[in-house]
Amino acid sequence: MSGITTFGERRLVLISGRAHPELAERVAAELEVDLVPTTAYDFASGEIYVRFAESVRGADAFVLQSHTAPVNQWVMEHLLMVDALKRASVKQITAVMPFYPYARQDKKHKGREPISARLMADLFRTAGAHRLMSVDLHAAQTQGFFDGPVDHLFAMPTLVDYVRTRVDLGNVVVVSPDAGRIRVAEQWAAKLGGCPLAFVHKTRDITRPNQAVANRVVGDVAGMDAVLVDDLIDTGGTIAEAVRVLKENGARNVTVVATHGVLSDPAARRLADCGAQEVVVTDTLPIPHEKRFANLTVLSIAPLLGRAIREVFDEGSVTSLFDGNA
Amino acid sequence: MSGITTFGERRLVLISGRAHPELAERVAAELEVDLVPTTAYDFASGEIYVRFAESVRGADAFVLQSHTAPVNQWVMEHLLMVDALKRASVKQITAVMPFYPYARQDKKHKGREPISARLMADLFRTAGAHRLMSVDLHAAQTQGFFDGPVDHLFAMPTLVDYVRTRVDLGNVVVVSPDAGRIRVAEQWAAKLGGCPLAFVHKTRDITRPNQAVANRVVGDVAGMDAVLVDDLIDTGGTIAEAVRVLKENGARNVTVVATHGVLSDPAARRLADCGAQEVVVTDTLPIPHEKRFANLTVLSIAPLLGRAIREVFDEGSVTSLFDGNA
Amino acid sequence: MSGITTFGERRLVLISGRAHPELAERVAAELEVDLVPTTAYDFASGEIYVRFAESVRGADAFVLQSHTAPVNQWVMEHLLMVDALKRASVKQITAVMPFYPYARQDKKHKGREPISARLMADLFRTAGAHRLMSVDLHAAQTQGFFDGPVDHLFAMPTLVDYVRTRVDLGNVVVVSPDAGRIRVAEQWAAKLGGCPLAFVHKTRDITRPNQAVANRVVGDVAGMDAVLVDDLIDTGGTIAEAVRVLKENGARNVTVVATHGVLSDPAARRLADCGAQEVVVTDTLPIPHEKRFANLTVLSIAPLLGRAIREVFDEGSVTSLFDGNA
Amino acid sequence: MSGITTFGERRLVLISGRAHPELAERVAAELEVDLVPTTAYDFASGEIYVRFAESVRGADAFVLQSHTAPVNQWVMEHLLMVDALKRASVKQITAVMPFYPYARQDKKHKGREPISARLMADLFRTAGAHRLMSVDLHAAQTQGFFDGPVDHLFAMPTLVDYVRTRVDLGNVVVVSPDAGRIRVAEQWAAKLGGCPLAFVHKTRDITRPNQAVANRVVGDVAGMDAVLVDDLIDTGGTIAEAVRVLKENGARNVTVVATHGVLSDPAARRLADCGAQEVVVTDTLPIPHEKRFANLTVLSIAPLLGRAIREVFDEGSVTSLFDGNA
Amino acid sequence: MSGITTFGERRLVLISGRAHPELAERVAAELEVDLVPTTAYDFASGEIYVRFAESVRGADAFVLQSHTAPVNQWVMEHLLMVDALKRASVKQITAVMPFYPYARQDKKHKGREPISARLMADLFRTAGAHRLMSVDLHAAQTQGFFDGPVDHLFAMPTLVDYVRTRVDLGNVVVVSPDAGRIRVAEQWAAKLGGCPLAFVHKTRDITRPNQAVANRVVGDVAGMDAVLVDDLIDTGGTIAEAVRVLKENGARNVTVVATHGVLSDPAARRLADCGAQEVVVTDTLPIPHEKRFANLTVLSIAPLLGRAIREVFDEGSVTSLFDGNA
Amino acid sequence: MSGITTFGERRLVLISGRAHPELAERVAAELEVDLVPTTAYDFASGEIYVRFAESVRGADAFVLQSHTAPVNQWVMEHLLMVDALKRASVKQITAVMPFYPYARQDKKHKGREPISARLMADLFRTAGAHRLMSVDLHAAQTQGFFDGPVDHLFAMPTLVDYVRTRVDLGNVVVVSPDAGRIRVAEQWAAKLGGCPLAFVHKTRDITRPNQAVANRVVGDVAGMDAVLVDDLIDTGGTIAEAVRVLKENGARNVTVVATHGVLSDPAARRLADCGAQEVVVTDTLPIPHEKRFANLTVLSIAPLLGRAIREVFDEGSVTSLFDGNA
Repeated sequence: MSGITTFGERRLVLISGRAHPELAERVAAELEVDLVPTTAYDFASGEIYVRFAESVRGADAFVLQSHTAPVNQWVMEHLLMVDALKRASVKQITAVMPFYPYARQDKKHKGREPISARLMADLFRTAGAHRLMSVDLHAAQTQGFFDGPVDHLFAMPTLVDYVRTRVDLGNVVVVSPDAGRIRVAEQWAAKLGGCPLAFVHKTRDITRPNQAVANRVVGDVAGMDAVLVDDLIDTGGTIAEAVRVLKENGARNVTVVATHGVLSDPAARRLADCGAQEVVVTDTLPIPHEKRFANLTVLSIAPLLGRAIREVFDEGSVTSLFDGNA
Repeated sequence: MSGITTFGERRLVLISGRAHPELAERVAAELEVDLVPTTAYDFASGEIYVRFAESVRGADAFVLQSHTAPVNQWVMEHLLMVDALKRASVKQITAVMPFYPYARQDKKHKGREPISARLMADLFRTAGAHRLMSVDLHAAQTQGFFDGPVDHLFAMPTLVDYVRTRVDLGNVVVVSPDAGRIRVAEQWAAKLGGCPLAFVHKTRDITRPNQAVANRVVGDVAGMDAVLVDDLIDTGGTIAEAVRVLKENGARNVTVVATHGVLSDPAARRLADCGAQEVVVTDTLPIPHEKRFANLTVLSIAPLLGRAIREVFDEGSVTSLFDGNA
Repeated sequence: MSGITTFGERRLVLISGRAHPELAERVAAELEVDLVPTTAYDFASGEIYVRFAESVRGADAFVLQSHTAPVNQWVMEHLLMVDALKRASVKQITAVMPFYPYARQDKKHKGREPISARLMADLFRTAGAHRLMSVDLHAAQTQGFFDGPVDHLFAMPTLVDYVRTRVDLGNVVVVSPDAGRIRVAEQWAAKLGGCPLAFVHKTRDITRPNQAVANRVVGDVAGMDAVLVDDLIDTGGTIAEAVRVLKENGARNVTVVATHGVLSDPAARRLADCGAQEVVVTDTLPIPHEKRFANLTVLSIAPLLGRAIREVFDEGSVTSLFDGNA
Repeated sequence: MSGITTFGERRLVLISGRAHPELAERVAAELEVDLVPTTAYDFASGEIYVRFAESVRGADAFVLQSHTAPVNQWVMEHLLMVDALKRASVKQITAVMPFYPYARQDKKHKGREPISARLMADLFRTAGAHRLMSVDLHAAQTQGFFDGPVDHLFAMPTLVDYVRTRVDLGNVVVVSPDAGRIRVAEQWAAKLGGCPLAFVHKTRDITRPNQAVANRVVGDVAGMDAVLVDDLIDTGGTIAEAVRVLKENGARNVTVVATHGVLSDPAARRLADCGAQEVVVTDTLPIPHEKRFANLTVLSIAPLLGRAIREVFDEGSVTSLFDGNA
Repeated sequence: MSGITTFGERRLVLISGRAHPELAERVAAELEVDLVPTTAYDFASGEIYVRFAESVRGADAFVLQSHTAPVNQWVMEHLLMVDALKRASVKQITAVMPFYPYARQDKKHKGREPISARLMADLFRTAGAHRLMSVDLHAAQTQGFFDGPVDHLFAMPTLVDYVRTRVDLGNVVVVSPDAGRIRVAEQWAAKLGGCPLAFVHKTRDITRPNQAVANRVVGDVAGMDAVLVDDLIDTGGTIAEAVRVLKENGARNVTVVATHGVLSDPAARRLADCGAQEVVVTDTLPIPHEKRFANLTVLSIAPLLGRAIREVFDEGSVTSLFDGNA
Repeated sequence: MSGITTFGERRLVLISGRAHPELAERVAAELEVDLVPTTAYDFASGEIYVRFAESVRGADAFVLQSHTAPVNQWVMEHLLMVDALKRASVKQITAVMPFYPYARQDKKHKGREPISARLMADLFRTAGAHRLMSVDLHAAQTQGFFDGPVDHLFAMPTLVDYVRTRVDLGNVVVVSPDAGRIRVAEQWAAKLGGCPLAFVHKTRDITRPNQAVANRVVGDVAGMDAVLVDDLIDTGGTIAEAVRVLKENGARNVTVVATHGVLSDPAARRLADCGAQEVVVTDTLPIPHEKRFANLTVLSIAPLLGRAIREVFDEGSVTSLFDGNA
């Protein structure tokens, strides 16, 4: 037969945007690779320039960006990197987004809104991404927004292992800060040995007519160690209020746990002052010095990302990492 | 300028699959139109044949199918009808699916599963549908699976208006049968005047070691009229069990409400025997004689579908129908 | 250069739907592989659930379904399996459909019909299939409906080898049961040594005014061994009538040969009673016990499928198998 | 509501490529419109330039090209015109191709061939065509190659009306020149009152061992008026040979009828000399003076195209024109 | 025929992002419409929320954004608005971007870069834009990046009309600040009556070995009124240097003209100090107070945008506005 | 795990259209491969037939065509070859087009034109090309027309190396024949050691009122060796006129250099007679005997193409070949 025949080789490369270089370095260390040397900067006009300093032809590229504020800046940089990879003849592009941007706008709450989380999926597909990898999506349905494989990783094992050492397992209750997140709380309760569950119900309080909204704890928390779980903490208002009513209802202490520490202002102040014993998040998003406070604990997501990237590259099963839930 | 110029006209046509002709007739009556005469039958081999008996060129077509069992049969017929419309030069095709097929498979629960609800959206897009219309999606995120407008209608106003007349509004509690549906229950509680909320928590009961799962009511229901709400009732197992524990926990009576009466075997028997005072559903799915039982009430969804189709055709706002939630 | 480099490996996996497990097992035996352990069942509501029990990341997957009745059920299961493979990061997906569903609806016979065979191709493309493999398409043009490679296999060598042993090659005539299939009959005639050809012409018989349609044999069959060939036998009406007129026109005996034994009711009875010496089909479709009759011969298509799958995986030429006609 | 509201108007425009201006003028006359003034020429390098001299924004454009030799030149011009229309904000583009280019390459006869007819459909879709209109496709399945509506027109009524006046209807036989076109011949036979059918079978003649191929008439033609029908006449070899064997088998006279007069060299000479009484074609392709011969009759397809375009624009049913076969 | 028939109406709506509300108001005034009431704000996390306060079903929507810094913010807002319009059943969406974002990254200057201008076109297409409208693209080829109609408007008539009143037309030379923009300068020279042309050539000066780059004027400018033209002024470095060498080469005075006043720091200071007599730009981008300086003139592009939007809506020819160059 | 596992191999195949077999043979020789045996011919009707004579399953295919006149013929052949490769299960298809067809129609000069260069990119994408390779695109932006990687090669090093030996480097001026190509001339000036630059400005000469257009040299050329550079020479009119005015303005001699020798009539005569000392082009296009003239030099592009194809196949960096400009 005509032609030239060679052995096929497969090459993994890891690339990072500018949003969270520490996380990228930690993932690179887990994988024992160097990041691809990359140029990325802003022009005076605000437009971004990116370029990779070495060939990536034929590689299996994982390009990591952490979608913190200014989120639109980092989304666009991520898209430009994917486009550059596509035009550089990369074989397969996985956009690694530990915190999925616009994840909360996953449906139309009212008419004439965008479905921004779907738009994100489509933008990454258009730019050239073949696969997404993300951690603890706000709604698992978001996987279905992307027309291709999505590796959905779970921080829960990492978080549970830590929390287990911080509470009295014989006297613990898992609490959801609102009605929409009880499913996650239920999974936590199962992991903590089938402990009880409660949630905070926002309602009009008919006994105090001039006050529009009150928060009512549904379930028993008196005298217990409460673990208040959510997927993310943004401005911290809901969480701080939930801690307050839990204590008001007699909770012995409250540990707040969330995967994503968005921590928009004034979250740091609110959380520091809310009376929680400890607030635990991961580093899917950068948490700069000025957002840190005394009882904040940050666990690294890098070991999880590193193992998942390696499994994807090795064509093994990501599922095995996560209790059959990937 | 060269050419021929005429006035543009717009024509609405309504077409029905074979799954639920009664509903189609009711919607046609609401709209004061005749259904487009349509041939549809099965060949001996099981393949379906469809054809429209009059021209639909340039029309704004609404094609209605009710995705009851055998659901794959009706999905395929629906797709074939959309394909036929596309090839017949229809201007715009809206697939009306009061009950979205495979709505519950909206994410990967474990690895190596399909996301069937997304696949449905893509299949209809590929066949040629420009727009979907559906009622009470299992998860609102399913809207985002379709690459185009989705008119998401809510049966809640219809159902609430009815239930309001059947319970003691001063002594009512809304109950979710599991942790995942509390958001809907919360909306019901708000509609019923800010009443309390409860849910049933499935858990391992540590006091009875040989029994794997127990159901625990979180929230107070003793002495109250319980309204147990869900989006659909399939085999009725979860609902019947929830009625049982509610009564065990002292509920005065239980009214079960759901939009979609799937009522797969043995739902009819279970619901008839479970002790609920009344079970209320709509006719988004056909409920044949053999599935009906004494305390079942079926409300028609046709007025809602008729108004929504008319508003879409008139290019008015579907939102106006539904408290700003479309 | 940055990154991790490994050798590329390629892995073939074979997966089967539930329609015809015997055929899948036979193909697996030809390939000397195990089928990927797969869960597939129907929910009470009629919706299908599928899941693969082991990782298929990076594999070259061949997923086999036999599109027998209830055909819409099996098409949907096939699509769901393809979707699950796509989301599980399979490298290449070949949908193996020995009998292409809706193959006969390959054009609009009248206005406002679907082109169902094209719709099938698009549905499989949308679900994620990269390649199709099928046997004896009703019209070869159906290959062009799919936007990608189609491996079109021919059962004729298998069938001819068998028939050659059953007829008097010096006194044989090949007959097409209607005007549309004479091309296939012509290929048979060539394979059987350039023997004569005939066909049955449906026409209005002007000598019998009250009878609308008569069948006329065009070509000479008297005293000869007739081989009546078609691509498929559905209800058997056309075939049984053709056998009748052939015998009426003096054929010594009639052997019926077709690739696909659809055998919808009342085919089994009709064929058993029609006077044919033997009816020969392959197992592209399952033929359950109740459809079998005395003079029915079923040849297995598994060796052909096995060799073709192996050649595709080995990146050899499928053409070589089939006289330059693939 | 905000905004400006006006009446919608619809405008039909007709545009012609350079391949067959006479046909375009005839269609324009049928429609009583002027062709859109258009610039089209070749640069010295062979590249084509096209531009429309007046605005076509918002119009319903029908762009006609006749795919005669040099066919690649005219296909490219057709595509460039469609692209220009798309970029000029036309609302809907119908590519009118009375003779579909590459229609005969509608399947892979052997491995590693293109499916050129599908490629054409895709190229026109990519350029921006929403709809195709064509006459007597070589295989009706070609409709399914285009992802959108195809108006498939039939010249048969036009041709039958003419032929009916030229033969002895009580003594006529319809003949197909080969095994693959008998379906069309069968339709002709029905239209001519249920007359008999025959075809020419190419076969190895075992009585003359040194001669590879012989043509055998299957069916009776002695003493009859033979109407030899095909969809197109290219170099005329098959047709001329068929006329010869028909006369050899005793046909009284032979009328040749085909929709498309490709008439590649040496068709004109062959047909003039073959002994046919008359050769009838339409003007779907231009027939220049040097290809014309004494007993050639050319009927115009323009009335059919004009009516079909008008019906499409009026959103009426093209089917009505053609005995329910569009 | 079945169905409901109404008159078609067409409705134009104008929508604005938050980047440059003054320009949107001016365009609305030109069109005599109100802007669609729109909610748009940033969440604390940096994610954007948008919603339209009235129905836009069936409308022809023009959505205007000015892509000034922070450009990624405004691009994302623009995309979200287009997505919301798509999901709100708008009939046609035109993204109006007077200054095309990332226009200068229209090719790969080196390997492994993105082609950002193409990416922008694809992102808007994916979000749902059918048509783009822009002014003075950096390269006209950018039109071809979008898969649909692009209305490319020219500010030159507006600018020339003004400049004509400010220079001595008998003694004027048009100058390009570098080799890449001479085509535009040539058009200016033609518009100003066939006046002479010059450009600034950046080169290594071999007489001053220690200085890497010098700028040389090619063409005569001594004693003349120089009009220095470019499509945009970003940081003003190239322009200020060009003014300096023109004066050094004896130009009597220099008028700087550009369509887009990006004016990134330190453009305002550089331009104020560079010795130009006047700097003329349009308001395609907002020019806040702190960027304004004494000899800056800002002409409004709103009349041009207003007329073009109206012509597009009226399905007239945008070309007519612009000397046959649209 | 189930399945069969083998080593992956990668195979390069080179395929050639009929337009310029000499170039294909030269590239094959550079790569030390045989061309894939290919059948390609025209039917009498003008339609093209292509087929590859050996299996190319799984190969990395490079298919080369030179887009000379009749360009539409060769574009269509190229597309048919790509389609055939796609359907033959090739892994990756690179369309190698040394001279990009329709490259000059890369924007709308006036309204209602096509953007033919974009259309070409889309047609090749639709047919199945994953990647394009071309030399010296008329505008570099054309890279962005293709939705995938484009390897843009530069002939300049080859041409400069040759010209450097033919001129007096201490006394050379680089000249652009018009205002639009000065960017390329500037790159030449840099490569030749920072030499001066000039261009020819077409303008209305106000001193000779009855003559519409005159050509004026901007920059000094008297007494110098002029190198007149362009990307292509078509009919040679602009070039011949530029040579004339350069000599009129005192240039000592003129060397004409261009990558693509289109040389449409009457280029050969014009160039032979224009007074240029030498005309240098490459063999991206075939230059038949009748177009050759005494002072024409043709350099081969095959070494460049060969090295680039090899680097792409080896997944190395094409950039390295070309001074960081690929």
